Amino acid sequence: METKQTPYGFGVRVAAPHQEAIERTGAALKEQGFGIISTIDMQQALKKKLGVDFRPYVILGACNPPLAHRALQADVGIGLLLPCNVVVYDNGDGSSSVEAMDPEAALGIVGENSLVAEVASDAKARLRTAIDSLSKRADG
Amino acid sequence: METKQTPYGFGVRVAAPHQEAIERTGAALKEQGFGIISTIDMQQALKKKLGVDFRPYVILGACNPPLAHRALQADVGIGLLLPCNVVVYDNGDGSSSVEAMDPEAALGIVGENSLVAEVASDAKARLRTAIDSLSKRADG
Repeated sequence: METKQTPYGFGVRVAAPHQEAIERTGAALKEQGFGIISTIDMQQALKKKLGVDFRPYVILGACNPPLAHRALQADVGIGLLLPCNVVVYDNGDGSSSVEAMDPEAALGIVGENSLVAEVASDAKARLRTAIDSLSKRADG
Repeated sequence: METKQTPYGFGVRVAAPHQEAIERTGAALKEQGFGIISTIDMQQALKKKLGVDFRPYVILGACNPPLAHRALQADVGIGLLLPCNVVVYDNGDGSSSVEAMDPEAALGIVGENSLVAEVASDAKARLRTAIDSLSKRADG
């Protein structure tokens, strides 16, 4: 199992082709109370708009409604940082990478708002659990 | 004309109801090379998932394909911070607020990647122009 940590997210490489990785990701997020509220197919968009070939790559917008509601009540402009993005992309070797935005990094730029910070912390713990569960399945 | 500046975005209040503000925003973004690649109706989502009433509120995912492609080539994980969100919400007084994510703030958390920084700067200038054009129309 290979994990990845960046200043803005964390993820894992799973031994599954793209479509299967997307499905597993959706299921893992659902267990943590996140629905997929938007799906952006970047491969398709880049092909259609620029005519370029890019690897299979989707941006899933994961939304936990109670958390989103709390964040919006704390700061009406916070929608600029919603939903929590989760990307799934193909590595060209039969494996896929699944990475989640770190809500504490993203919402951290909001500044001093303790309610928002609380929501970000909760969201991060749930996303971390979802990503970790994918690692476990990848190992099993 | 009332403008708004936060650590993570900038916006303007326009004298237009919600739907009209959404249409004007889409047109202004299009002039700057951004297509709307996703639309999330938060009012509807919160009603459906939680049964709560929230103001009319959409999160538009604005994507400038050449910029997105450059960013993804510089950092494959950057999809976590794409697309550029633009929110349009109702103020309950006949006016709407339109706010755009500041790509320099969002992409700034990526760290030291000069190619990404270049794309963020370009995207920010375009979003700023789009938002400014809404202010001008609002005044006219």
